[in-house]
Amino acid sequence: MASVLSFHVANKKLKPSEKPLPKLRPGWALIRVRLAGICNTDVEILRGYHAFRGTPGHEFVGEVAGVDGVPESLGKKWLGRRVVGEINVSCSAHGYRPVCVFCRRGHRTHCARRTVLGIVAHDGAFAEYLALPLENLHAVPDSVSDEQAVFVEPLAAACEILDQVNAKQFLEAAVLGDGKLAQLIARVLRTAVPHVLLYGKHETKLALARSAGIKAKKVRGDISDLKRAEESYGFVVEATGSPSGFRLAQQMTEPRGTLVLKSTFHGAASIETWPIVVKELTVVGSRCGPFPRAMALLRSGKVRPAPLITRTFPMSEAPAAIRFAQKPGVLKVLLKASGLGPATTG
Amino acid sequence: MASVLSFHVANKKLKPSEKPLPKLRPGWALIRVRLAGICNTDVEILRGYHAFRGTPGHEFVGEVAGVDGVPESLGKKWLGRRVVGEINVSCSAHGYRPVCVFCRRGHRTHCARRTVLGIVAHDGAFAEYLALPLENLHAVPDSVSDEQAVFVEPLAAACEILDQVNAKQFLEAAVLGDGKLAQLIARVLRTAVPHVLLYGKHETKLALARSAGIKAKKVRGDISDLKRAEESYGFVVEATGSPSGFRLAQQMTEPRGTLVLKSTFHGAASIETWPIVVKELTVVGSRCGPFPRAMALLRSGKVRPAPLITRTFPMSEAPAAIRFAQKPGVLKVLLKASGLGPATTG
Repeated sequence: MASVLSFHVANKKLKPSEKPLPKLRPGWALIRVRLAGICNTDVEILRGYHAFRGTPGHEFVGEVAGVDGVPESLGKKWLGRRVVGEINVSCSAHGYRPVCVFCRRGHRTHCARRTVLGIVAHDGAFAEYLALPLENLHAVPDSVSDEQAVFVEPLAAACEILDQVNAKQFLEAAVLGDGKLAQLIARVLRTAVPHVLLYGKHETKLALARSAGIKAKKVRGDISDLKRAEESYGFVVEATGSPSGFRLAQQMTEPRGTLVLKSTFHGAASIETWPIVVKELTVVGSRCGPFPRAMALLRSGKVRPAPLITRTFPMSEAPAAIRFAQKPGVLKVLLKASGLGPATTG
Repeated sequence: MASVLSFHVANKKLKPSEKPLPKLRPGWALIRVRLAGICNTDVEILRGYHAFRGTPGHEFVGEVAGVDGVPESLGKKWLGRRVVGEINVSCSAHGYRPVCVFCRRGHRTHCARRTVLGIVAHDGAFAEYLALPLENLHAVPDSVSDEQAVFVEPLAAACEILDQVNAKQFLEAAVLGDGKLAQLIARVLRTAVPHVLLYGKHETKLALARSAGIKAKKVRGDISDLKRAEESYGFVVEATGSPSGFRLAQQMTEPRGTLVLKSTFHGAASIETWPIVVKELTVVGSRCGPFPRAMALLRSGKVRPAPLITRTFPMSEAPAAIRFAQKPGVLKVLLKASGLGPATTG
């Protein structure tokens, strides 16, 4: 079998390697990656998060290049199809019986034995090919371009908030952070909450939010500015990706308010917990979300992520791309496979 | 006007002083304290919490000795009545107009301009007399003794959890901590959840929980014991009063689980927040609660707090009592006013 290019983590860097095509289990698909996105989690992985040593990358759009162990009609349905894929692979796809308590409850993203594409024991999208179970795939409609579809995974993570919090009860919401995920979250919240304020530190990123109809305010190095202004909200989303974000978010959430946590940086933060108790806050951790909802937002044009793309690199330049992604002011960086024709549909 | 005895915080100690009787506003009552309870918050206040410099004490049962500015019939209803009192005094009782946004929403315990009995700008129950608005008072039925009634305030704080979390959905719950509040919480949860496990470090306190029909497990100094056992729960209440409690509670809460925070120690803890995100936990801060529900639990005998009383001191020995309350193994310490007859009713 031909060797294919992939990148793996070694000594806190991305290194290229030639590997055989991923092996398929019954019910799994081989996917040729068309476009992959670099997420802050990939940067954290380079720094040692999850002690992951395989191929990172969990945001992608690709096309189905092969399927295994499924009826021919099902195979025909998928072969050549443009797809995006949910990243948590649970008991059923791994063939574990009986399935774990979380799968039984229908919380497959919390499967006790899950692998996670590009994050936990599962080679990811910084490669020519990856493998995922068919049950994880979602077809991409013709009207959604590769450059939109590659945002489905992080956009779904933003949509998760709407599944967890009854956002419609709020007149306003604050999003802390102006990075990639914060920008998507603000755009998603705007579909449910009349006034969304994004707080960030980078003027160009704030301007980008404003151009999408979101109010944006600059936070200086110190949070005392905000304390003085006594700006507080019943609904706050922390997506700064930094340890100090939680403290600020706690201050900005008013009594009995809801504070959603999205940042997954590693390392301990020094946190006073008594304000959570005294203000009786509800703090909601939020991770992966519903792909269909995210796809619908792209299809309808209600969320347009294209302006968040800073630069697209050829897949072969993945190491340079992930270094570039860590520069100040950079938002989404994409990796594009070579030798692919225009987007095709199944 | 006669001077009366009270204790105030000075140099991290309780000091006696003779002060005039508290002044009453219209709609307020003068209350002669019969019995007061010492809470961990009082100990925190001695250590500097809230920079409070007045008379601490917020758990009490007393009798109404005077009322001001109310119709005679209302006065008659209350005078001589045995009462307990809610500790948050909000806009309406202070005469502020317009009332704040939290009072407008009916969240009077979160009033933006509240004083708090014995905690924030309001002299408390470690004294012969205190003052509270009539709207804060609850009459104590004949069948509830002073020794039971003095637990209404902390028991209400435990009951708050049942107002915040749909406890009936859970088959089991874990309570972390074996102190006064943790013991009350476990007893309250037992009225709604079939299996309640209390985790603590003190054998005598665990035995006390067991005698109330609660399963209790010993945690050694290190939390790794529990990690090995992979003990996890969908519903966890953190009431250890210590910074390490949050970390343990986070580990013990299963994905999509609910973690209620009750500890209000001051000072920052070093906390990893990513498990909240990855497990999508809901963390609920919980403070003051419903007095009627607590009173009903005492009246029905469903919760019997008397075994939690370690010792009762005369009110005049308050400084010795609060020192005693900080000794290992000690649970509730009470202060009893001198020269009071048997419990009377209105």
